[in-house]
Amino acid sequence: MAFEDFFPEVLKRALESLQSVPTYGERSAERFLYNLLKLEPQKREEILKVLMDASYNLTECSECGLMSDINPCRICSSPIRNRKLLCVVEESKDVYAIERTEKYSGLYHVLGGRIAPLEGISPEDLRIDSLMKRIEMLTPKEIILATNPNVEGEATANYVASLIKKSFPKARITRLAYGLPFGAFLEFMDEITIESSIENRKEV
Amino acid sequence: MAFEDFFPEVLKRALESLQSVPTYGERSAERFLYNLLKLEPQKREEILKVLMDASYNLTECSECGLMSDINPCRICSSPIRNRKLLCVVEESKDVYAIERTEKYSGLYHVLGGRIAPLEGISPEDLRIDSLMKRIEMLTPKEIILATNPNVEGEATANYVASLIKKSFPKARITRLAYGLPFGAFLEFMDEITIESSIENRKEV
Repeated sequence: MAFEDFFPEVLKRALESLQSVPTYGERSAERFLYNLLKLEPQKREEILKVLMDASYNLTECSECGLMSDINPCRICSSPIRNRKLLCVVEESKDVYAIERTEKYSGLYHVLGGRIAPLEGISPEDLRIDSLMKRIEMLTPKEIILATNPNVEGEATANYVASLIKKSFPKARITRLAYGLPFGAFLEFMDEITIESSIENRKEV
Repeated sequence: MAFEDFFPEVLKRALESLQSVPTYGERSAERFLYNLLKLEPQKREEILKVLMDASYNLTECSECGLMSDINPCRICSSPIRNRKLLCVVEESKDVYAIERTEKYSGLYHVLGGRIAPLEGISPEDLRIDSLMKRIEMLTPKEIILATNPNVEGEATANYVASLIKKSFPKARITRLAYGLPFGAFLEFMDEITIESSIENRKEV
């Protein structure tokens, strides 16, 4: 009996299908599926139904690109958010991370990723055209570039900043502060972080 | 607007639901869901339907415990497999790994995990009772303990071996060989592996 004859077709198809989820390879597909199948049939069916529900009901906000169950999303359609403050992030989950602080009251713009030439992600793959249109329409007082604090996030922020400056020379563009994360140990921090935390030190 | 008011309920439910998949915490749930949602609605629906299909059609073989689309599974119901050879593994995926070699022609018994007291997995959580019953019925000439080559896999093999010896003193019990994996570099191998590869060295 050859391996192909024995391996359940439906299992094979599920594993292959899972590998079309971005960042999912063979290992992560197996991890998800085999662990899911460890549950009782009712329980796994319930999980998949909830996922189906999320998949049906969530869509990208046509204004900011945020994953939302209504369009425009709750933030874009809110009358109390500050429409003169625009925060540019890579992904929806970054919006959730900032919202969790309850310290930001402006609008967002979700790029849908970061520029990563090695992965074939170029500026055209990101929501940059619509960002320019929104800046023109909203004329924000400040644009906060909140891409991630790593090489690709920096490159993306620099690229977006240069584009904005070209079209809107008066725009005020800021970037999130670098520094020590809460709970960190100095000994494990990289030089860029420590250097920034010294440069930006504050009076106590 | 408090965070709870803004975060889509359906997204929250999906993330919570995913965390009931064994080994899935907040991070892995987010990774799966947010990446899934990056796909076009049709594509993600297709993936979830295939998963639903797998979930409906796969069940544990009532004889050996293997995840299968028929019961008893193709191996247990095969007329050409050697029923006097029994290979005991931790999980279904271990069966697939061994089958891929096409070098083993006996039956399997899937324990459904390994003994891991720190994770609260005790012998009663594994398919050990049914293993004893099958050994009694099949009277295998050899029982290969193919649990993983790590501390917990070893402990599980030792535990199962002692139980088998108690009930079936004449049973021949073997364990997979330790040695260097193909493609390895000696410098990165641990001492137990190198020691075993020296002890079990072969004439060329």
